[in-house]
Amino acid sequence: MTITQAVPPGTLTRPGRRFTLSAQTLDSPVTPNPVFREWFAEQRRTNRYEVRRIPFRDLVGWRFADSTGNLVHDSGRFFSVEGLQVRAEWEGHAASWSQPIINQPEIGILGIVVKEFDGVLHCLMQAKMEPGNLETVQLSPTVQATRSNYTGVHKGARVNYIEYFAPPRTGSRVLFDSLQSEQGSWFLRKRNRNMVVEALGPVPAHEDFVWLTLGQIHQLLRESNVVNMDARTVLSLIPSYADEGPPLHSMEHLLNRLTEIKAHRELVQTSMPLAAVRNWRRTEDAIAHDSGHHFTVIAASVAAANREVTRWTQPLLAPAEQGLSAFLVRRIGGVPHLLAHARSEAGVLDVAELGPTVQCQPGRALTLPLPRRPRYLDLVLRADPGTLLYDTVQSEEGGRFHHAGNRYVLMEVGGEFPVDVPGDFLWVTAGQLSDLLRHSNYLNIEARTLLSALRAAWARGGAYAR
Amino acid sequence: MTITQAVPPGTLTRPGRRFTLSAQTLDSPVTPNPVFREWFAEQRRTNRYEVRRIPFRDLVGWRFADSTGNLVHDSGRFFSVEGLQVRAEWEGHAASWSQPIINQPEIGILGIVVKEFDGVLHCLMQAKMEPGNLETVQLSPTVQATRSNYTGVHKGARVNYIEYFAPPRTGSRVLFDSLQSEQGSWFLRKRNRNMVVEALGPVPAHEDFVWLTLGQIHQLLRESNVVNMDARTVLSLIPSYADEGPPLHSMEHLLNRLTEIKAHRELVQTSMPLAAVRNWRRTEDAIAHDSGHHFTVIAASVAAANREVTRWTQPLLAPAEQGLSAFLVRRIGGVPHLLAHARSEAGVLDVAELGPTVQCQPGRALTLPLPRRPRYLDLVLRADPGTLLYDTVQSEEGGRFHHAGNRYVLMEVGGEFPVDVPGDFLWVTAGQLSDLLRHSNYLNIEARTLLSALRAAWARGGAYAR
Repeated sequence: MTITQAVPPGTLTRPGRRFTLSAQTLDSPVTPNPVFREWFAEQRRTNRYEVRRIPFRDLVGWRFADSTGNLVHDSGRFFSVEGLQVRAEWEGHAASWSQPIINQPEIGILGIVVKEFDGVLHCLMQAKMEPGNLETVQLSPTVQATRSNYTGVHKGARVNYIEYFAPPRTGSRVLFDSLQSEQGSWFLRKRNRNMVVEALGPVPAHEDFVWLTLGQIHQLLRESNVVNMDARTVLSLIPSYADEGPPLHSMEHLLNRLTEIKAHRELVQTSMPLAAVRNWRRTEDAIAHDSGHHFTVIAASVAAANREVTRWTQPLLAPAEQGLSAFLVRRIGGVPHLLAHARSEAGVLDVAELGPTVQCQPGRALTLPLPRRPRYLDLVLRADPGTLLYDTVQSEEGGRFHHAGNRYVLMEVGGEFPVDVPGDFLWVTAGQLSDLLRHSNYLNIEARTLLSALRAAWARGGAYAR
Repeated sequence: MTITQAVPPGTLTRPGRRFTLSAQTLDSPVTPNPVFREWFAEQRRTNRYEVRRIPFRDLVGWRFADSTGNLVHDSGRFFSVEGLQVRAEWEGHAASWSQPIINQPEIGILGIVVKEFDGVLHCLMQAKMEPGNLETVQLSPTVQATRSNYTGVHKGARVNYIEYFAPPRTGSRVLFDSLQSEQGSWFLRKRNRNMVVEALGPVPAHEDFVWLTLGQIHQLLRESNVVNMDARTVLSLIPSYADEGPPLHSMEHLLNRLTEIKAHRELVQTSMPLAAVRNWRRTEDAIAHDSGHHFTVIAASVAAANREVTRWTQPLLAPAEQGLSAFLVRRIGGVPHLLAHARSEAGVLDVAELGPTVQCQPGRALTLPLPRRPRYLDLVLRADPGTLLYDTVQSEEGGRFHHAGNRYVLMEVGGEFPVDVPGDFLWVTAGQLSDLLRHSNYLNIEARTLLSALRAAWARGGAYAR
């Protein structure tokens, strides 16, 4: 099997057809790999910035509201840190807790411009720094803009290439467009608009931007902290290949199972004043849980060269430890299936979304008594490295999260692993996940990163190349 | 064209195929029309009940919570009447208001058992009284149960046929299953689970239940207040016919347009104490808006024979006037299209849902200055009766609403009506709406009633029969 063949012209952009991911071009006629490497190293060198942790009182434009203790911006825009009361009950489990949560009702745009050069599909990627990033600069989508960004509330520079995404879009054609959720444990019902558009004419160049093939991006996804979260979620929208073989369950059956899970779970989310959240303590520079687990809300001062505004302060959410997100992958009838877990996270919009088989902060999870530990966690932690199709640390959005690294794992399990699984787990194929991604709130963001990672694993060739 | 032909055996229940609605059986070998009429008249005669308006202080088990003024049940279950603050902004419009709203986080089941007799598909319908109904008894789905109902919190009788819908479902096969929204102006993010299941074996009879063909039900839908709201929404899930011709817009385009609308609209919903809602006044027997418009929250005492518990009191929401819900229907390229309006109602879960072209309380709407009146309202109010494919008053759910009648209209417009419409309107075919109904929160409940009504109009034959 060769993996150097080009994506056939027009296969992505012709409606109703899917391109074959095995046919990924691992190099680009527009941006050969060495050229990219040099450009990217230069971007990381020149886009230096300084992020300093500061006490909350040194935040400019941010304050704790008198009546609620919520951390808010003076403009009433951007986002706020509030309290959330959660009551969850299903299958004999009942839990009730309160926690800080980020409320950002605005829907931003995460969008990639694609275009064929010499018959090969390319994505226009941006080198972008974000204050909380692991590794300064990462590759982001062409456009990564909050509503405040692109409508000018931010008072910063205009957003490059926004005209390819905002109406009337005379220079582009929309290929994929849906609202997708972000971290349900940290955000209250947050979604961003994920878009892929095809440029219809010549696209002006810009020094912070580069054209890469899907194959190149998938190779980079095998490295840590190069392709940022926003790029990964947009990439996950691009369907993989046409003929993966028959899935274990029909789509109607999957929808039935998901509906059943949502109907049986009771999840009541009630906003509350941040000051009233129990077991969390606010000091002069942190809001932290008494146990030291979960996350901390901190404040940071940022100074950078090429961001919309060059100097600012903002709150950030810092996870207490590196997370773990892992899909078990098993061939069923010869067809690779992922074991998805229906997760009801605190801030979820629609009761439950499909997440990875295991998703947790393992340090905390291992302090739990065995029956309350995430199912299959031990299996993943004790995995033979030879079964790991993908095992890479990636960071979550650096605009909101401080050094939020997650270990992303795809672990192959064999025929000895049972096809019969507990009721909140579902075997799904990559193609079925792609179909669900035409709609909102079916897959959580960790699952979407792993869907992109699966394509990266396939692009590498080997056992799972097709 | 004949419309007396049977639905061909297995066409609904065979995966991936749709039955042809023109092939509706307008009579039933199991329940001939005269037999149904007699049975239904008898049901309405014997299932008498008395609904009396009472002061709030006479509610049993219900009270206004001290701290919030919310109207709550002592068990913490069922539903509550709370306050909601809404801030909406788009396309230059900005609005902000607060209002009472019903919060019912539990997801109930609305489900119809179907089965073929003599090769003809039948639905098992129930004669059910609800306290707020226009006309005492209406036809409801086989099962119409809140979570409290079927898990026994209600302390009433067990729910008939619930075993066809609740796992392990050994006697049935799920055909359609999705969460669908209810009135967004009156409910906070309310959904019920809408199901259609096929019975696999003999189904025991019960005196309150009757087998009717789809054709019979569609004929009954042309009468007022016979087929209840819950039956209408479940029926709307059953797709219509296979070959309606090419739609004006592809599904990808529709999803793109809807995503764009959701991303551009800002809708911030904040729960608040009912006591703090502005411009609403609570007296001893009503919570009403100062203008007299919108709706009133009242209390009622109900005594009935065959409901789960035979005597109870409860709050009801009474609309201030009869509503109007109308779709404009136009052939485009020979294919009938409905003009859907993306509506952001106060309690909507996901920013906007597709609703009818016009949906309002016309009495109030006509008091508004012209630029703020619902678009196309005048067109519908001044319609030539000959253009009305459907024009029937139906009532909304009698378990929550008191005498909530809506005039449902399908109005045919000709080639002089422009295909170019404002950005928050979308031309869609019935088939496209069916595809969207596999998922949640695309169509509001008024649009779903009208989708069922469209099939009733088609069943009648005439210009829109196929």
